[in-house]
Amino acid sequence: MDSRKFQIQAISDPNSSSTDVYHLALDIGGSLCKLVYFTKDDDHFVDGEAEISSRNTSEKSKGNRDHPVLKGRLNFKKFETSKINDCIDFIKTMKLHLGGVQQQENPGNQPISIKATGGGPYKYADLFKERLGITLDKEDEMDCLVAGANFLLEVVDREAFTYMGDQRQFMQIDQNDLYPYLLVNIGSGVGMIKVEGDGKFERVSGTSIGGGTFWGLGKLLTKCKSFDELLELSYQGNNRAVDMLVGDIYGGTDYSKIGLSSTAIASSFGKAMSDNKDREDYKPEDIARSLLRMISNNIGQISYLNALRFGLKRIFFGGFFIRRHPFTMDTLSVAVNFWSKGEAKAMFLRHEGFLGAVGAFMSSDKHGLKELLVKQDAQQSPTKLSFAVNKLQGPLDGELNGDESIECSVYAA
Amino acid sequence: MDSRKFQIQAISDPNSSSTDVYHLALDIGGSLCKLVYFTKDDDHFVDGEAEISSRNTSEKSKGNRDHPVLKGRLNFKKFETSKINDCIDFIKTMKLHLGGVQQQENPGNQPISIKATGGGPYKYADLFKERLGITLDKEDEMDCLVAGANFLLEVVDREAFTYMGDQRQFMQIDQNDLYPYLLVNIGSGVGMIKVEGDGKFERVSGTSIGGGTFWGLGKLLTKCKSFDELLELSYQGNNRAVDMLVGDIYGGTDYSKIGLSSTAIASSFGKAMSDNKDREDYKPEDIARSLLRMISNNIGQISYLNALRFGLKRIFFGGFFIRRHPFTMDTLSVAVNFWSKGEAKAMFLRHEGFLGAVGAFMSSDKHGLKELLVKQDAQQSPTKLSFAVNKLQGPLDGELNGDESIECSVYAA
Repeated sequence: MDSRKFQIQAISDPNSSSTDVYHLALDIGGSLCKLVYFTKDDDHFVDGEAEISSRNTSEKSKGNRDHPVLKGRLNFKKFETSKINDCIDFIKTMKLHLGGVQQQENPGNQPISIKATGGGPYKYADLFKERLGITLDKEDEMDCLVAGANFLLEVVDREAFTYMGDQRQFMQIDQNDLYPYLLVNIGSGVGMIKVEGDGKFERVSGTSIGGGTFWGLGKLLTKCKSFDELLELSYQGNNRAVDMLVGDIYGGTDYSKIGLSSTAIASSFGKAMSDNKDREDYKPEDIARSLLRMISNNIGQISYLNALRFGLKRIFFGGFFIRRHPFTMDTLSVAVNFWSKGEAKAMFLRHEGFLGAVGAFMSSDKHGLKELLVKQDAQQSPTKLSFAVNKLQGPLDGELNGDESIECSVYAA
Repeated sequence: MDSRKFQIQAISDPNSSSTDVYHLALDIGGSLCKLVYFTKDDDHFVDGEAEISSRNTSEKSKGNRDHPVLKGRLNFKKFETSKINDCIDFIKTMKLHLGGVQQQENPGNQPISIKATGGGPYKYADLFKERLGITLDKEDEMDCLVAGANFLLEVVDREAFTYMGDQRQFMQIDQNDLYPYLLVNIGSGVGMIKVEGDGKFERVSGTSIGGGTFWGLGKLLTKCKSFDELLELSYQGNNRAVDMLVGDIYGGTDYSKIGLSSTAIASSFGKAMSDNKDREDYKPEDIARSLLRMISNNIGQISYLNALRFGLKRIFFGGFFIRRHPFTMDTLSVAVNFWSKGEAKAMFLRHEGFLGAVGAFMSSDKHGLKELLVKQDAQQSPTKLSFAVNKLQGPLDGELNGDESIECSVYAA
């Protein structure tokens, strides 16, 4: 059994409603809506109950990690935010908002609230109320992001990986050697967060040149209709048609005196400055490629400088700009490698799209699992719970599409 | 008399030709051609000769700084590189390439060479040979840039200034407190140079997002025909029409938890991502403004992070992107102020357009002034020369157009 655990403070709250939903959390972003929910494993349900009972028959057994109080899975699921009704249908069909129990078990019809983060909870509050009868309990985005990253990096086996030249390499990180790290969240803009531990973090920097710049400038410069189309296009392009390279300035040779190779980009879009060409004369794929390299290079550079500044060992990149697109990860990795002269490596998370949702699920003292325990045996809930991950379900080296589940056990700590 | 001096090592070279031109140097860039030349002051010419004589009549007087060996002026002049023939006409009329002497004084017609830096000396070598009969002696750009900045900052009164909110403030920098500093040269790309003293410097960083990106992207996104037109346009624009601000995300309020005001740019060009608009629907002045702010902010941020990293006290910005445009200086100043939380100030140089040309004139042991001295009295030349600046000619607080002269004296040190 995996000895790495994530401690969750479950402070007893006399006012907590027994109808709080315990096993669903949402992260509703501008483009994607992410769900994380816990399902009890049917195969282990009886065992689980027996173990819960055994835990509660003896005070001594509290904290015995050989006896999980719950066994089941953390499930990850995503929908396009533009199809938010599909997401609501899914929740309704799976009865996720009811904690898997039947409606009649909530006779008083007390309002049910679901943890949610991202910008969407503000926008879709009425829709969720109307269609599911639930309120969305808003959690701070950054709190969730960090809590999610901490949980995944501490508990989930082979969560972190490097990516360079089409090679993905999973990294085993010792939990005692994880902190401090830099979390770079590339959304429309870029936030850089120094993470020193559970709940200990600070936004130290950022840049306005992010995913919104890529897609915003890309939309103005090409006829692409979507972010993914622009990204796909960039794979086929060659930035040399648009960028001014070091070799273009120094007659095809390196400027070795200052360590710049002839193929290094001297000026992004610099060729467009001197050529007697209009926008239509450039291939959109070359423009897309140049944009992607410009933005990735810049994020890699500023991230590395901030990691240096605060003495942070590792840089983890996440956010919608990445979405596990190989070429995006590769350009970020090349940038970090270039600016750090090989001393630092860009790292990525297997579940990077779900950081906020996992954080909404895990953070705070209101994650609901203790209510499940209370409901199951009507005993006092444990003050702390810990999670252990038994194994990942889903292909490890295959396509990382993120819709997978993690088998895990919950312990009274 | 100003006690700040610039020491120039003038190593005796038995092979040096007496026909070397001593008082002209060129920096031929992609857009501008800059000249720096020394003219003897006619009023002081006899005095000067007398002093030179007196210096040579007694070995003891060597190094006596009360007796300049030359008095005169450093002159600054610029031409558009596209009108390089105007520049050559000027040199020809002023006989600058002949060191002010008559052609017949060079009976052997030995090849005359002129110090030149920038990319142009490669391109225009044949033209200078053909029209003036001179060869261009190429000096490394970065060597010249640093030598020029060092000379101006050490010797010239009120060379450095800050610029913020339309306020220009000249700074008096103690020569003993000048080093180390960061020199940020914003050309097509951006080079960042750590300068620790005379000839002691290292390119420590840079970014490909520079003047070429501003003009290259600007050309693709607007109908502007020139860099200056694009810059002029940006003065009239409002970046809020194109950029996603913090307030756009957080419902018009600050995200005070992380110290971001509602007007801070969250994502450059982020509004273009979500709006259902085409390029033609945006005002070109708003696009220009957004580009300028994006690029200036980014340069300010990376400069500040590098200054921090290497413990550099001051950041001086120069290069064609600046060209003393008030709005460009202002955006860079705001960026450095923002990222440093008010701890650092962006600084600029009065003669920033002439750094390379001054450096070509001043650097190396071949600046030619010693040959002038040898020629004048046929005695052994001094091993070192130093410059002192008496006063600036030209308006101090008026338009900084750069075409001015500095009255100065040359001493045997």
